[in-house]
Formats: sequence, C-alpha cells, structure tokens
Amino acid sequence: MSAERKAELINAAEELFNEKGFENTSVDDIIKRVGVAKGLFYYYFSSKEDLIDILTQRMLNEIESSVVAVLEMKNLSATDRFIGLLKSQKDVCLRSEIVIKYFSVSRNKSLHLELERLAHEILVPAFEEIIKQGIEEGTFDTKYPFETSHMLNMMIQSAMYNMRNDPRIEVIERTLEVVQYMTEKLLGMDAGTFQAYNTFIRTAYPDLDIILSKKKKM
Amino acid sequence: MSAERKAELINAAEELFNEKGFENTSVDDIIKRVGVAKGLFYYYFSSKEDLIDILTQRMLNEIESSVVAVLEMKNLSATDRFIGLLKSQKDVCLRSEIVIKYFSVSRNKSLHLELERLAHEILVPAFEEIIKQGIEEGTFDTKYPFETSHMLNMMIQSAMYNMRNDPRIEVIERTLEVVQYMTEKLLGMDAGTFQAYNTFIRTAYPDLDIILSKKKKM
Repeated sequence: MSAERKAELINAAEELFNEKGFENTSVDDIIKRVGVAKGLFYYYFSSKEDLIDILTQRMLNEIESSVVAVLEMKNLSATDRFIGLLKSQKDVCLRSEIVIKYFSVSRNKSLHLELERLAHEILVPAFEEIIKQGIEEGTFDTKYPFETSHMLNMMIQSAMYNMRNDPRIEVIERTLEVVQYMTEKLLGMDAGTFQAYNTFIRTAYPDLDIILSKKKKM
Repeated sequence: MSAERKAELINAAEELFNEKGFENTSVDDIIKRVGVAKGLFYYYFSSKEDLIDILTQRMLNEIESSVVAVLEMKNLSATDRFIGLLKSQKDVCLRSEIVIKYFSVSRNKSLHLELERLAHEILVPAFEEIIKQGIEEGTFDTKYPFETSHMLNMMIQSAMYNMRNDPRIEVIERTLEVVQYMTEKLLGMDAGTFQAYNTFIRTAYPDLDIILSKKKKM
C-alpha cells in the first residue's frame, strides 16, 4: 500500500499547487487532503521542494513517452505527425503548468537545462525521423534532415520566447506568419502550403488563442 | 602629451599580452617597454585588468565601425556586401585574439553578452539592410528580411560553436555544406549558387584553413 500512499500525496500536492500555488501550499495542507499523519509525509519526502522535483521528473518522462507515442503512429502522414509531435508537447506542458511556473518564478536554470537536453536527445531526432518520412512521401525536400530539425527547434523556441515576451497582437500575428514561412522554406515546401501548422500553433497556446479571438470580436 | 603616453601603454600591453599571454605579463613589463615610471601606469590605470577592459571596448568599437564601413560601400552587390560583413568581423576578431582568449579562459560572461548585444543591435540590422538590397537586385528572395537575418545569425553562431567544439574534418566539411545550403534556402537562392560564401567561410578561420589544407595534402 505504501507506493499508493506516496502517489496519493504526490497527486494531492499537484492539485493543491494548481489551486493555491506552490508558495501558498503547506505540508499540512497536503497531509490534510490525503488524511495521513505528518510523519508519513516526511517518511517519503524531505521537503515540499522534493515534490517539485518529482513532478518535474514526471513531466520530463511524459514528454519523452508522448514523443515515442507519436513516432509509433505509423499510419499518419509526415505533416500530421509533425503537428502531432508539437501537439503532444503542448498537452504535457498544459498539464505541468505548475512545474513550469515554479521554475520560471524561482529562476531556477535546472528545468531549462533539462528541457534543452530533452530537445536535443529526443525532440530533434524525432523531427528528423518525421522529416525523412516526408522526403520519402514527397511533401518535404531537404538534403539535411538532422540539421533542419535542429534549426526548426531553435526557431520555434525563439518564436515562443518572442511571443511570450511581447504579447502584442501584431507581434504574435507576424511571428506566426514568419514561423510558417520559414518552416516551409527549410522543409522545401511551396509558400503557403503548410497552413495546417500555422493553424495548430494559433490554437496551441491558450493565451494566444484568447488574444487572437479577442481581436476577431473587435 | 598625456593621451599619447596612455595610448603607448595600451599598445605596449597589447603587444605583450600577444607575445607572452595576459597571465605572464606584469605591470613592470609594460612600463619597461614604454620606458616610464610605475607611478604613471597607476595614474592612468588601476590594474592590469583595466587594460583588458580597454582592449575589449576597442574591439567592440572596431566591430561597430567595420559594420558601418561595409554598409557605406554602396557600389557593391548584396552578395559581396554579405561576405564583406562577415569578413570585417573576422578581421577584427583576429586582431583581438588576446581579448577573446582572455575571456574564454576566465569564463567571463560579460564579453559574450556584449557580443550578443552587438549582434542584435548592429549585425542583425546590417544583414537586414543587405538582404533588402539583394531582394531589389533579384539575388535574394524572402518576405521577412529582418527575421531571416536573425535566423542566419543564430545559424552561423551555432555552426561556429559546432566546429570549434568538434574540429574533426568531416564535421567541419559537413557544417560548411549545411551553412551554405541553409543560407541559400533562407535567402531564396538556387541550391549551390552561393559558393562564394562557402569559400569565404572555409578561409575565414585560420584553424579551419589549416585543417582543410592538411586534408588536401594527404
């Protein structure tokens, strides 16, 4: 039963961090929700920060397995898998919002470095595999699938940073256009043919979605 | 006469840093070369490290003015100015080798940050202007000159890092090919048409040149 108790404590902590924020959640709140004694908490964890480490590791594992899942969908076209790969990242990131928020508030570099490592070891090779598939299918055209994946990864990261840093509607609209345009160039597609990708990015980030739909209403 | 004395001390320090390295050069060596008393040195500078700051600032100013000089060469084609811009950076970097060596040994982040700032404030806009010229001339084709400059800058930085980090001949050869290929894609040129650029990069970095010419001899 002990593994179950531990999992209950982790899930309760995640819920509470989501509801009240990490700073406003105490160990007492967590044990109260599960209905156990404080001693049991400290049997499994040395501090509240331990739970952030566990949730971070869980997020990283989820990213990893979601990438593997996309790669195993063998019946999809390369363009659908390309979008599928981005979509899987978005889903994990939404679920792990507290972890990401915690790390951005604490200005802790370790999550950033872990995500960079994941990008290099898992995401970039996954994009490479999808690009190779697209070349065989005749939708993509590049001599260097690996380096193209790396460039796309750099570009998407920098675009996301750009939009988060300056969320004015004209910046977002332009960034989305540029990302589609550059992706098409790098993948050797005709200009304007990867609209599905642009549409996905538009709806991928809830805050973008809100900003862009507000504009339409005006 | 005082400004001249100060300049003499700075030049002597630069020479000595080049000959013996920063660490092995003493204030005594510097004043001996110029033939002045120690008191005069400390009248102008508080320490040997001061001279590195001055040499750094000089290098940054030289980068800035070399970019301006390239932009003022109005009779050159866009492709020649593109290469001219890279060439000017190379010349400044060669002359400022000690400064760069000092900062890489001391793992000091400040030069790196200053160079990043320069890239964003001066180099990227300069590339943008050249790309716009190329679009008018019909050699380049992109809807987004500014963002393309930014991408090219990121790509060139990361390629340089790549080659310095892993200077095996096959890595260098591939990186050079990829940089040409990607640059052509981003600038909307036909594949293989920007050979002048590849040739320039090959001869731009003395260590690359040595490695690549060794291979030819084998």
